[in-house]
Amino acid sequence: MPRFKLTIAYDGSGFHGWQAQTQPADHGRRTLRTVQDTVRDALARALGQPITVVGASRTDTGVHALGQVAHFDAETRIPRRRLAMAINSRLPRDVEIRRAEPAAEDFDAIRDALCKQYRYRIWTASRRPLQHRHYTTHCWRPLDHAAMSEAAERLVGEHDFAGFANAGHGRQSTVRTIHHCRVERAWTPTPELHVLVSADGFLYNMVRILVGTLIEVGRGAAKPQVVDSILTTGDRTQAGPTAPPQGLCLEWIRHRDVPAGDGD
Amino acid sequence: MPRFKLTIAYDGSGFHGWQAQTQPADHGRRTLRTVQDTVRDALARALGQPITVVGASRTDTGVHALGQVAHFDAETRIPRRRLAMAINSRLPRDVEIRRAEPAAEDFDAIRDALCKQYRYRIWTASRRPLQHRHYTTHCWRPLDHAAMSEAAERLVGEHDFAGFANAGHGRQSTVRTIHHCRVERAWTPTPELHVLVSADGFLYNMVRILVGTLIEVGRGAAKPQVVDSILTTGDRTQAGPTAPPQGLCLEWIRHRDVPAGDGD
Repeated sequence: MPRFKLTIAYDGSGFHGWQAQTQPADHGRRTLRTVQDTVRDALARALGQPITVVGASRTDTGVHALGQVAHFDAETRIPRRRLAMAINSRLPRDVEIRRAEPAAEDFDAIRDALCKQYRYRIWTASRRPLQHRHYTTHCWRPLDHAAMSEAAERLVGEHDFAGFANAGHGRQSTVRTIHHCRVERAWTPTPELHVLVSADGFLYNMVRILVGTLIEVGRGAAKPQVVDSILTTGDRTQAGPTAPPQGLCLEWIRHRDVPAGDGD
Repeated sequence: MPRFKLTIAYDGSGFHGWQAQTQPADHGRRTLRTVQDTVRDALARALGQPITVVGASRTDTGVHALGQVAHFDAETRIPRRRLAMAINSRLPRDVEIRRAEPAAEDFDAIRDALCKQYRYRIWTASRRPLQHRHYTTHCWRPLDHAAMSEAAERLVGEHDFAGFANAGHGRQSTVRTIHHCRVERAWTPTPELHVLVSADGFLYNMVRILVGTLIEVGRGAAKPQVVDSILTTGDRTQAGPTAPPQGLCLEWIRHRDVPAGDGD
């Protein structure tokens, strides 16, 4: 059966994360609203058949995406150039298929991911974020940009990031390679600091713990050198708290073997 | 009793507009959440006394504000520089007192307003606004910026704006003076068109009908000259539809007799 690759953007504010969930019995409702369920249901209606969607990143509740990637298999006579529109017309306003394209039969959104980039927005004005409150974390006090940048540089490279993961990551290896990590000033229109980080993969809550640690450094509660210590010892307790989810956005994922000649 | 002036910002997404409301009996809930009620309750808790708040503009459901202005009377020993913080600590995250300052005893937020500016954001990309969907109106098709600017210029000056008001405005005179009206390109980061309009006052739904008319001109469904015709005839049916509320933001209000030496 032909395989397709989806690139998906969503506002995570109204979703309990990416992954389809059956809610625990003690909550009283049947299911939580998730992006995976929402996209799967829209695909099923657009294509007239049950669909299984596999997503590259299990984003948490409240985390946003501009470039989540997923794959699915289906027989369809919908022309390729109309496929995204056909799915979007069945999707609610807080999620959008940005691309829908044929993929190799063995393309796997999870296994073939080479590099992912996240952006974390920190609102550094004393004024409240108001319209930005679902998309930033509010830090009332000024942050030391230079110290945060120095700490960010120390994260780059191949390291054991066990100290930057919360329990439950369930991965055999905690070694990852961070390609870039930098702290940028942004004006939108009030001052923000954005943490951009790209890596070949991330452990559970790793970006949010990295950011929580950088914020501790920015507040002066820790030195940039704490990064070296956490990487060496793997000691989670030396790292900062897990930063809140709403500041985080999955910007893009690069995959191996993108089918040639099928780009639009 | 001393009078105070408040400058208030809010995300209108979660409010049924500014004005305190008692919900009609057929809705089943007691009251709708409004900004006026929310600010009044926070003031009452901060100052330990019942407070009446008078706001300059009755913004509609879903409309935002950066610079709503209101006045209230109260005896308080809270130092002036701590007053805004004392109120803000009792306010939810989607509303914020930007300034709280002493005013003349006869200062009136409504009567003394000289000029107000609104901004209306039109999202002109084919992609969905997602995170911006509560703060923009989505126009899928390209809009003719030059034609809209020409129409906007024709609105400037003292005119009878009866044709740009919905029924129920209840004002004796429908003559107002528009000081500025222009259409700007903005990048946030996708292309938007912003309509900025300032006037000595606005009729009911006047900004949204102005914008609805400018969008019709931008789509090519009307010529810029339609503005002259509406101003001359007062014919509401020649104007465009009332644009949706969520694109609209009250940016600032200028008042006469701002107390000298009290700015911060």
